Amino acid sequence: MEAYFDNAATTRVLDSVKDIMVKTMCEDYANPAAKHGMGMAAEQYIRRSRAEIAKTLGVADKEILFTSGGSESNNMALFGAAFANKRAGRHIIATNIEHPSVFRVLSCLEEAGFTVTFLPVDNEGHISLEGLKEAVREDTILVSVMYVNNEVGAVEPVEEISRTVKAKNQKALFHVDAIQAYGKYAIRPKRQGIDLMSVSGHKIHGPKGVGFLYIRDGVKVKPLIYGGGQQGGMRSGTENVPGVAGLGVAAREMYDNHEEKIRHLTGLKDYLIDCLAQMDGVVVHSKKGTDGAPQIVSASFSGVRSEVLLHALEDKGIYVSSGSACSSHHPGASGTLKGIGVPAKLLDSTIRFSFGLFNKKEEVDYCVSVLEGLLPVLRKYRAR
Amino acid sequence: MEAYFDNAATTRVLDSVKDIMVKTMCEDYANPAAKHGMGMAAEQYIRRSRAEIAKTLGVADKEILFTSGGSESNNMALFGAAFANKRAGRHIIATNIEHPSVFRVLSCLEEAGFTVTFLPVDNEGHISLEGLKEAVREDTILVSVMYVNNEVGAVEPVEEISRTVKAKNQKALFHVDAIQAYGKYAIRPKRQGIDLMSVSGHKIHGPKGVGFLYIRDGVKVKPLIYGGGQQGGMRSGTENVPGVAGLGVAAREMYDNHEEKIRHLTGLKDYLIDCLAQMDGVVVHSKKGTDGAPQIVSASFSGVRSEVLLHALEDKGIYVSSGSACSSHHPGASGTLKGIGVPAKLLDSTIRFSFGLFNKKEEVDYCVSVLEGLLPVLRKYRAR
Repeated sequence: MEAYFDNAATTRVLDSVKDIMVKTMCEDYANPAAKHGMGMAAEQYIRRSRAEIAKTLGVADKEILFTSGGSESNNMALFGAAFANKRAGRHIIATNIEHPSVFRVLSCLEEAGFTVTFLPVDNEGHISLEGLKEAVREDTILVSVMYVNNEVGAVEPVEEISRTVKAKNQKALFHVDAIQAYGKYAIRPKRQGIDLMSVSGHKIHGPKGVGFLYIRDGVKVKPLIYGGGQQGGMRSGTENVPGVAGLGVAAREMYDNHEEKIRHLTGLKDYLIDCLAQMDGVVVHSKKGTDGAPQIVSASFSGVRSEVLLHALEDKGIYVSSGSACSSHHPGASGTLKGIGVPAKLLDSTIRFSFGLFNKKEEVDYCVSVLEGLLPVLRKYRAR
Repeated sequence: MEAYFDNAATTRVLDSVKDIMVKTMCEDYANPAAKHGMGMAAEQYIRRSRAEIAKTLGVADKEILFTSGGSESNNMALFGAAFANKRAGRHIIATNIEHPSVFRVLSCLEEAGFTVTFLPVDNEGHISLEGLKEAVREDTILVSVMYVNNEVGAVEPVEEISRTVKAKNQKALFHVDAIQAYGKYAIRPKRQGIDLMSVSGHKIHGPKGVGFLYIRDGVKVKPLIYGGGQQGGMRSGTENVPGVAGLGVAAREMYDNHEEKIRHLTGLKDYLIDCLAQMDGVVVHSKKGTDGAPQIVSASFSGVRSEVLLHALEDKGIYVSSGSACSSHHPGASGTLKGIGVPAKLLDSTIRFSFGLFNKKEEVDYCVSVLEGLLPVLRKYRAR
């Protein structure tokens, strides 16, 4: 049996996504900027995708800007909002468990003269609303928070965060890194007070190399890429029609029968957490049910190095991640695990299991039985 | 019969490109940063593509950086080189017929305190080497030139330009926008003195949403997108494995039997130019043989509005471009046509025919016979 449990790193595309991509690569392949009918046909794919995505969020089509993925979305949101609004102030707030594509941009902004307050999280990965309230200043122009943490699946109270920020400084913009949240939650930016939101295609069974940034109408953001003026001048470059079309299909399918899909993911998660909790020397960092994201289970296996366990599982056809596989070949321990207070000796013993639409309960059963066989052997080996 | 003559806007992907993309979307779909074997398999596609592309240019693998396309490559080259080298000076040189993804970035750099000299071109689209020599200053840090102009197919003498620049200022970097040139020319950056070079996938029967930037080893460039540290920290974001793999295949195929392919394209071009030259009231702006790019024919049809002709051709299944279709729905006349001195009354009567690997001589015959039938009718209609 094979079990791909690394869906928070990336997912297999849906067949319907593949089909529309093949069609737009081989038949309707024109440049959407072309004035002939083939160009207009290509442009229709972009429009349809934008409309489908906007519908999943209850926002206007024109508030969706296509990018090359989650990292570009995060970069554009932060650089773009900071530089477009720097006259109003130069203070930014984020948490200390952000993804590198947020964290490193904020470091660049610090070098460029902005001040960033990083809020700590508790051992469940949540920031304190009291602490946030204190941190918001008159010159705060931007608050950036990860909706679902990619390493442990902690979920931030987005709506309350926005309310807290706006109560103290109405002009401060609120950016949400929703790369692990979109497709998993019924997100309503208008109701939740979200001004900017980053999404990636390949985390929702869509294509790699494409994503979007929700930009609330009226929010000032500077472009990251200039040129031919595509997408209203906000993101130049010939639109990636196959990618954009595939993203639209993935979004539509993720939100079709959405509750059933989330029940399925949550069921797998809760079942794996229950099984892990019964094993000796296993500490689960993720929460059951709606207290954590539906797709992520992070657990530490004491006395076993995560990389050893990862490869032992791989030998049995089970694919998982050690810490977060979103960032490339990083040495050093995870910021999130440290942030939520995982003891130093467990940092290097942590594995992330993450589920997608293709996973089945039998795969979890198989994984659990493999773990039960492996763990005593690996610990014995380590003990020598 | 159908004839797609808009290959300078974008191309249909090769079947071999589509096949590798489907494979990496549906089977080898893992995240290249993942530590398990599926991740390593995905990473192999990136490595292979990088090696294949490097081979087409005679450069080292590590000098190839994947981007989301030509516009990102141009943006990164110019912003990246300018900001990384601003201590050495703040003067930049370009031509006055650059693509918007160069021109608009240079405008931003002017706002950021850089000075840009735009060199005029003669009526064949060439800059004067004497003029260039005069323009190079001690504080010139960057010279950016389009290899093949996208609107008329003019070819700049890249090697001589580099020699002229470096003779006067050895430290000035030389960036080449090769988006219409890569795949059409045997480019050798080392021999031609190119430090940075931008390429797009979808102009060479590869995928949209992917391209690369050649960065000569040792050249300092700042990243445009920060995050997980992929590609040595120079371009973060999960690699677009299907796009990158498809780009590698397209590059390999373009340079396989390369001379034969270019003979085919040049043959189509020369044949169309000969036919157009025999028609009344047609002015051809592109050069035959090696005096112009192999794939582009720009021509003005006096007394006919380009958009009217474009749609009339479209009714007969022939797809062309009015001016340049690279930039999105631009009002206003083309900078290149003005730059090469096309008379005002012909600016709005210009059509671009551009060829790709799939085109055949019979399609040109068909197009010529359609034009011979259409032009008198359209002129008569216009005259009323």
